[in-house]
Amino acid sequence: MVPGGPAEKKAEEKHASNEGSINIKNPHFDKMKEDVLYHFGLGTGTHNFPTMFGDVKFVCIGGDTSRMKTFISYIAGQLGIAGPGNEFPNICASTDRYVMYKAGPVLSVSHGIGMPSASIMLHELIKLLHHARCSNVSLIRLGTSGGLGLEPGSVVITKQAVDATFKPQLQQMILGKPVIRSTVLDKELAEQLMECGKELNQFNTVTGNTMCTLDFYEGQARLDGAICLFTQEEKLKYLTAAHEAGVKNIEMESSIVAVMCNQTGIRGAVVCVTLLNRLQGDQINLSREALAELELRPQILVGHFIKKHLSKK
Amino acid sequence: MVPGGPAEKKAEEKHASNEGSINIKNPHFDKMKEDVLYHFGLGTGTHNFPTMFGDVKFVCIGGDTSRMKTFISYIAGQLGIAGPGNEFPNICASTDRYVMYKAGPVLSVSHGIGMPSASIMLHELIKLLHHARCSNVSLIRLGTSGGLGLEPGSVVITKQAVDATFKPQLQQMILGKPVIRSTVLDKELAEQLMECGKELNQFNTVTGNTMCTLDFYEGQARLDGAICLFTQEEKLKYLTAAHEAGVKNIEMESSIVAVMCNQTGIRGAVVCVTLLNRLQGDQINLSREALAELELRPQILVGHFIKKHLSKK
Repeated sequence: MVPGGPAEKKAEEKHASNEGSINIKNPHFDKMKEDVLYHFGLGTGTHNFPTMFGDVKFVCIGGDTSRMKTFISYIAGQLGIAGPGNEFPNICASTDRYVMYKAGPVLSVSHGIGMPSASIMLHELIKLLHHARCSNVSLIRLGTSGGLGLEPGSVVITKQAVDATFKPQLQQMILGKPVIRSTVLDKELAEQLMECGKELNQFNTVTGNTMCTLDFYEGQARLDGAICLFTQEEKLKYLTAAHEAGVKNIEMESSIVAVMCNQTGIRGAVVCVTLLNRLQGDQINLSREALAELELRPQILVGHFIKKHLSKK
Repeated sequence: MVPGGPAEKKAEEKHASNEGSINIKNPHFDKMKEDVLYHFGLGTGTHNFPTMFGDVKFVCIGGDTSRMKTFISYIAGQLGIAGPGNEFPNICASTDRYVMYKAGPVLSVSHGIGMPSASIMLHELIKLLHHARCSNVSLIRLGTSGGLGLEPGSVVITKQAVDATFKPQLQQMILGKPVIRSTVLDKELAEQLMECGKELNQFNTVTGNTMCTLDFYEGQARLDGAICLFTQEEKLKYLTAAHEAGVKNIEMESSIVAVMCNQTGIRGAVVCVTLLNRLQGDQINLSREALAELELRPQILVGHFIKKHLSKK
């Protein structure tokens, strides 16, 4: 199949479900005798994936290693799950690339900063879920972001990730050629998460578009990087145009989350707290305590969602 | 100045030196009262940068946190520098994003995986070096990579980073518009490093082009990702074309290292060991011990270079 050709576009439009199983889109995959997930330090020849991960239904991901450790303790407490010795070991301890924790049906995994780092993690995570024969998995990114026209501390549930020109698509380079893929996220999951925000009523929660960039400084129109070749007026014109196009916040991973979930039949969502209003400034100068409190908000919302979902069964 | 316009291109061609000082290319910079380097957990209002970092001459960077910790102990041993209690504390301990260690004139900093993660680190690092009034700084990435037509364990010193179409340039999106910047690295520094490889004569060391991608699986023509829509033949055709265009290895950060160094007057280099020959396979299935031995090779080469350079003074 030609990447980006009509056949791929058609395949993308159909969010393959196959009774909720993980849809590996790779004809070479079944020919592999063993699969080494190099960046996780795990492999099918050395680990029993169905036993270790077969019951996973919710995968929560985020950039920071300590935030994902905090989350597993938080969700375990919410669900009344005790870890061995009340500790949840890092399943990827043999590598420094990512951390992974598990409590019952919830997996908590770090992805580092930016789409290339998140892309590696997502490829290996999706292969892991497939090897473990998981089904009906929801994947939710819990992140931080810069807001547009929102009070800091607002939580944004992403409808669609958009690129730097505000289009809901991601251009990937495959075999040296550009391939365009859709970055619209699962509508039903976003609505369920928004409902949880309303039920909690603890902080401002909104839905909207999220701009995903490859850079934090020049790429997000900041004036405080080591390099900046535009004016304050040009910056504000660009951010205002983004705001008018429905962009509520800016971060660096939502587009690849959307693409990878769309391609493999996983329900995907992105829930980010805003740390500042980018129409008013560039620098994040919250105290460590204030930052820690804001970073908990996506965890509280998603924790409520998981608890509610499991109690229905 | 219009990003990507003739004025910026001209500015890029001139590798600003200003007697070896760090050239912040940002007219807004001097108006800032305080600069918070958010992802380092450091700031000009809370830390004395000239005292902490004023003597830095060599910055060594790499993806992995533990590798950069190993390197600071290694280089301290080579230079006969003892840390407090023979320990080198992590200067960025208040954040999980990056680690930073210092031994005399050498700074060792992690950058995570991929250009977006490395870009944030480089913006804040270059601002740090500027605030500290450092001069004549060399920045060297010590990395791992996939090789093309080389025996695994070879060390590649990059002449120029190239994109997925083998051009020595990086396209960045700034204010929603593409800006093209040069990714040619410092010729003299590459030659000095190659000379060190010859003097050591411990492992195969070559110079060549390095292809820098935004993805490890589809973006590097791997057949073993969760998504792969091309054939074995199409993969080999692409990698062979890269090889014929002078590409010796493939990794995910060299282009942004080249761009940021070129723009700010820092001598930049990229030294990566190859973990496999991509013309023969995709999976990295080295033992942990074999991997650790190979990862040391760029450290040994750059350690030799720093020691030789300092002994000349």
